[in-house]
Amino acid sequence: MDVDRILPTDEAHDLLDLATELADRELAPRAAGFEERAEFPRDVLRTLGRAGLLGLPYAEEHGGAAQPYEVYLQVLEILASRWLAVAEAVSVHTLSCYPLAQFGTDEQRKLLPDMIGGELLGAYCLSEPQGGSDAASLTTRAVRDGDDYVVTGTKAWITHARVADFYNIFCRTGGPGPRGISCLLADRGTPGIHPQAAERTMGLHASPVAQVAFDDARVPAERLVGGEGAGFTIAMSALDSGRLGIAACAVGLAQAALDYAVGYARERRQFGRAIIDFQGLGFNLADHATGISAARALMLAAARLRDAGRPYSIEAAKAKLFATDLAMRVTTDAVQVLGGAGYVADHPVERYMREAKVLQIVEGTNQIQRLVISRALAKG
Amino acid sequence: MDVDRILPTDEAHDLLDLATELADRELAPRAAGFEERAEFPRDVLRTLGRAGLLGLPYAEEHGGAAQPYEVYLQVLEILASRWLAVAEAVSVHTLSCYPLAQFGTDEQRKLLPDMIGGELLGAYCLSEPQGGSDAASLTTRAVRDGDDYVVTGTKAWITHARVADFYNIFCRTGGPGPRGISCLLADRGTPGIHPQAAERTMGLHASPVAQVAFDDARVPAERLVGGEGAGFTIAMSALDSGRLGIAACAVGLAQAALDYAVGYARERRQFGRAIIDFQGLGFNLADHATGISAARALMLAAARLRDAGRPYSIEAAKAKLFATDLAMRVTTDAVQVLGGAGYVADHPVERYMREAKVLQIVEGTNQIQRLVISRALAKG
Amino acid sequence: MDVDRILPTDEAHDLLDLATELADRELAPRAAGFEERAEFPRDVLRTLGRAGLLGLPYAEEHGGAAQPYEVYLQVLEILASRWLAVAEAVSVHTLSCYPLAQFGTDEQRKLLPDMIGGELLGAYCLSEPQGGSDAASLTTRAVRDGDDYVVTGTKAWITHARVADFYNIFCRTGGPGPRGISCLLADRGTPGIHPQAAERTMGLHASPVAQVAFDDARVPAERLVGGEGAGFTIAMSALDSGRLGIAACAVGLAQAALDYAVGYARERRQFGRAIIDFQGLGFNLADHATGISAARALMLAAARLRDAGRPYSIEAAKAKLFATDLAMRVTTDAVQVLGGAGYVADHPVERYMREAKVLQIVEGTNQIQRLVISRALAKG
Amino acid sequence: MDVDRILPTDEAHDLLDLATELADRELAPRAAGFEERAEFPRDVLRTLGRAGLLGLPYAEEHGGAAQPYEVYLQVLEILASRWLAVAEAVSVHTLSCYPLAQFGTDEQRKLLPDMIGGELLGAYCLSEPQGGSDAASLTTRAVRDGDDYVVTGTKAWITHARVADFYNIFCRTGGPGPRGISCLLADRGTPGIHPQAAERTMGLHASPVAQVAFDDARVPAERLVGGEGAGFTIAMSALDSGRLGIAACAVGLAQAALDYAVGYARERRQFGRAIIDFQGLGFNLADHATGISAARALMLAAARLRDAGRPYSIEAAKAKLFATDLAMRVTTDAVQVLGGAGYVADHPVERYMREAKVLQIVEGTNQIQRLVISRALAKG
Repeated sequence: MDVDRILPTDEAHDLLDLATELADRELAPRAAGFEERAEFPRDVLRTLGRAGLLGLPYAEEHGGAAQPYEVYLQVLEILASRWLAVAEAVSVHTLSCYPLAQFGTDEQRKLLPDMIGGELLGAYCLSEPQGGSDAASLTTRAVRDGDDYVVTGTKAWITHARVADFYNIFCRTGGPGPRGISCLLADRGTPGIHPQAAERTMGLHASPVAQVAFDDARVPAERLVGGEGAGFTIAMSALDSGRLGIAACAVGLAQAALDYAVGYARERRQFGRAIIDFQGLGFNLADHATGISAARALMLAAARLRDAGRPYSIEAAKAKLFATDLAMRVTTDAVQVLGGAGYVADHPVERYMREAKVLQIVEGTNQIQRLVISRALAKG
Repeated sequence: MDVDRILPTDEAHDLLDLATELADRELAPRAAGFEERAEFPRDVLRTLGRAGLLGLPYAEEHGGAAQPYEVYLQVLEILASRWLAVAEAVSVHTLSCYPLAQFGTDEQRKLLPDMIGGELLGAYCLSEPQGGSDAASLTTRAVRDGDDYVVTGTKAWITHARVADFYNIFCRTGGPGPRGISCLLADRGTPGIHPQAAERTMGLHASPVAQVAFDDARVPAERLVGGEGAGFTIAMSALDSGRLGIAACAVGLAQAALDYAVGYARERRQFGRAIIDFQGLGFNLADHATGISAARALMLAAARLRDAGRPYSIEAAKAKLFATDLAMRVTTDAVQVLGGAGYVADHPVERYMREAKVLQIVEGTNQIQRLVISRALAKG
Repeated sequence: MDVDRILPTDEAHDLLDLATELADRELAPRAAGFEERAEFPRDVLRTLGRAGLLGLPYAEEHGGAAQPYEVYLQVLEILASRWLAVAEAVSVHTLSCYPLAQFGTDEQRKLLPDMIGGELLGAYCLSEPQGGSDAASLTTRAVRDGDDYVVTGTKAWITHARVADFYNIFCRTGGPGPRGISCLLADRGTPGIHPQAAERTMGLHASPVAQVAFDDARVPAERLVGGEGAGFTIAMSALDSGRLGIAACAVGLAQAALDYAVGYARERRQFGRAIIDFQGLGFNLADHATGISAARALMLAAARLRDAGRPYSIEAAKAKLFATDLAMRVTTDAVQVLGGAGYVADHPVERYMREAKVLQIVEGTNQIQRLVISRALAKG
Repeated sequence: MDVDRILPTDEAHDLLDLATELADRELAPRAAGFEERAEFPRDVLRTLGRAGLLGLPYAEEHGGAAQPYEVYLQVLEILASRWLAVAEAVSVHTLSCYPLAQFGTDEQRKLLPDMIGGELLGAYCLSEPQGGSDAASLTTRAVRDGDDYVVTGTKAWITHARVADFYNIFCRTGGPGPRGISCLLADRGTPGIHPQAAERTMGLHASPVAQVAFDDARVPAERLVGGEGAGFTIAMSALDSGRLGIAACAVGLAQAALDYAVGYARERRQFGRAIIDFQGLGFNLADHATGISAARALMLAAARLRDAGRPYSIEAAKAKLFATDLAMRVTTDAVQVLGGAGYVADHPVERYMREAKVLQIVEGTNQIQRLVISRALAKG
């Protein structure tokens, strides 16, 4: 379904047109095959990078497009509506550029053009096997040794673990608690960095997560981003942006599922009528169309707060929570619209449903979002 | 809770500040008493009219403020958060001005300044006892007789039935179907216009609805708005605006209920803690806070489409559906947060809950909204 | 709608037939009027008592019918489907007989026949204004003075506060915590027992709750039930039974609302068809019919555990939670089925909706039920 | 979690103990491996047959156990809680025995002992690629030719398509509509019966569905079950039983998911506590535990109606609808409880979620169940 969008600039229109064109040409035809083969679409990301879609929010001097989040998120949404794994990769990669873009030294930022250009793909190593939602207690340790930090520990649920060219590593350089955490940027191929086998996930097979083991991995001290102890601040300030990215992915995925279900329900006839004309089905689709419009509006409202320099953390949490819970419901019901046909891989909706689930979990589970929001209510 | 709003102009900021001030000073202290006494707050509406809040969307030449719907709706939301009956009265009154403002002759529009200024309060007579959601089949009849139309029939669920200074009457001047419907504007006191006893509604006692019987009521032919047969077009084009108005009322009411519940849950202690600190309650409030942000964003997105001159009918239906279903849930749970205390009139939440229900019904039941949306999906 | 029930005995069939007949003859025709006048139907309860319906679960030697809870609850359900206030009164009264029936001395139990026969109506004074869900910390105090206890304090949310013939008073005779609580049985008219003004509740106007102030009220020590310190045990063991009673009330109320909505939707025509034939409405009613069947089955399964002498506390909590949340949804949607007509007192559904809310709150709020259930899960 | 069941006989207790033992010993350890390898567990079904668990509802003279459905369904539930594919296979196989058991001639029934004993596995060929929910319009045709019927057409979504020893084929021997349909029983290896490639389903990989093509397949006329034109009656009367079977599968699956989530949530610690002690999670689990108890009670209530020889069709539809919608929610949330760990195949919950979806679709989609129920309401 065509979405009528009010955009801030003509440039934004052009960007969305470009994203749509690339999504239709480069993503849509490849999605099913790559997902089935569990093959990471490295070239597709390179294509997106060269087209300028990998660093939309970042400054033009670093190769970015200096776009407001309002625009970036809609690009992400469009990509997600054609292939979630790629949109999620873009979101994670954009997040991986964030520490350098926001906290890096001029020297460090020299890497940015290649990162934003899609030549260097990033991984964001924050979560740990035991850590879950409690980031402040992470245990991966980095010990200063001469001009290097020596990193030991294991990170978990890392997107691009096995294909990244660089790794943001959040690790403990000091004592317990949030103030002991720092952020290092390590290159692929650093001795002692060992990506593990891909996790056997329910979906997103084309862009699997994996653990990354750090076994006395030496990272040059000049790759410390933002100073010792700045890691938690970096991680937390990136978090809200990451949540908006996931919200955009969820909106795109839900829209794709709805569009597919609507298309099917218009064609499929039962008892002499197109099944979309049965209110039992039509009302369900109407509720989901409503939810998607609401999720998109909520995500954009949060983005506009961010773009205006206002606090947006709580609204980002709401957007992530609302959009991903919605995507789960919409995709589950999209399978239902197709009936038995929805349960098989001949149609994409069963994949959408498997993919939606992960969005309720990443960038802070939806329970964590509720915690963030309820605490804000409690404080007033 | 303070809502961080991005507004289009400084003037809009001033208007919302004014609305907040008036709502706090004139509405909030009177609401409980007037509702208990089932007394219509005519003076409060006059005050709002004099302050310029009764014709926000209309042209300045007619006494309006030429504000975009985006701004008007937020004013309405603020009023609704203090006293729904008044906000709903403003919404209905604003709707009652619409036929003249949009379709009236210059001569007819001479009434507008007094209408918009709050001296003349309007009623919008569309629904009929048997008609329900099927407006095109209305049966109130107007027969031309010399310079007058003679109106016979009964209208139902009419806000301001007993207090209006003028009535928009949608009536049949021609054959069956939508094209036989016209719109007349009648003055209070016209012989043959008989407002009936107020309905014994569950809520909104301060602004009751009633039937209006038309018994050979003579309305001057010069009060025909938009020509014979234009009535259905007028009604339908007003409908979408009316739905946005109800959405705004619902957002305001839900926010009031949430704020009250949050305030109570911060103070009330059980088992040694403020009850808002129990996740069982806090997560529920977080979900509702999320829903309210989404409803507001959705309503404003629809309003911006209207303001930009784009089609917005479907998005208005979504906003009405989403916001009013949400308000029903939020108010019901707000009572729950207070427990037994919520069930009694010492706190406003039981009233909020009784009031929320009507919003799911007016300006097209939420089933009708789903029908509108699902048909749009079916057509593509 | 006729419910096909599998009952354990022919006697049970007869009892349900009797209950149905009395409900149709004595309750249904009076409900609307008494509710509107906020008049307590004392005679109706006397009639039920004389017919043997006020002490169904109790031993025949005390005037009861020695019926299993499975049967008692279905009687309650039938009464509730005609008039909730009466069913709730029966439930509370039955609960009020419980301390004596289960823990009373033979001497004390001599009161039972009059209680069960409906001559003496009971109130159950457990909750306090500040206590809420935390019964173990109640503060009403009873001090032994000669042959009496002198009771001081205030009880809140007391059904029959102003019409009861006897009061079960849970009060502190010892130190803090559950072990310091005792249960006294006081007669109406005891000096120092002061029922307060009825609460201005949203519904159940015919059987209002009120506070009861105890101001040096002297209760003979021989009216101590179950010994000093037994109060909390009594209250807790009664609680589960009370929850089943509320579940039965909720099932009956939900069934009444569904039946009314179905009846209306069969008759009411829109767009040329009975509105029940529109799937949008029909599916909603189907979901609620399903919920009601599930709630009834769950309640009866819990009752059969009780009847079999097995632990049933958790299942009772589930039944209360499920049935009352359902009743809230069904009644709210029943109003919606009638549209505007549902919002006015000409039809009973708006009353059903106002009544349903209290069921989510009494006998332990539904948050408390969730707490009980989740703790059982946590313990395993 | 141990479920406290009230069973009708000691024999039933023994049967459930046997089922539990077999489920723990034969099913649970194999499930993950067989599902991963998409290998059909033929031997497990043989084991169940030899233990007497494949023909529980059928007469002892045919090798069955003459158990009430109330007992059979609880056996099925227990099997499903260990391995859904096997329980679903048992349900389908039991259904496949139904036409012969209920409508077969004595001669035909000689096959029953081997069927019920697990030597001969059955497939139930009713659905067609285009037919969907509209069984009366099926197009597979059987033409009488001498002593045979010659069958042409394609059946779809057939469980055991590729492993069955016999096929119940519902096919058209007469004119259009339900009265033209007959039921044939064909042996495996009949020339012209061509099972197609397994469908690439989201779950239930160990027991895949496939199309079965009939290409002039000759079935002896003596294998006509119940006479020409009896097919639709047979199919419809089997349908209700089949729905109860799916309800039982759903209850078992939901219970397995809840139990796993509860077990994990008791062990998993975050922020210093077992996560089940956080109300946000605990209340969600409590709601699901409640739903499961309600679903089980509803399913058993419907079964008891069947066992008592009363109409149970509507209650079976409710049980199927309620239990399968519940299973979808519970399994989706069970993944959520585990967070990232829930999304990978190291834990069974992601499989449960993929499996739950099919239950909302088979034996009549849940939209069809709602249609059945709403029509019953409309008729009264």
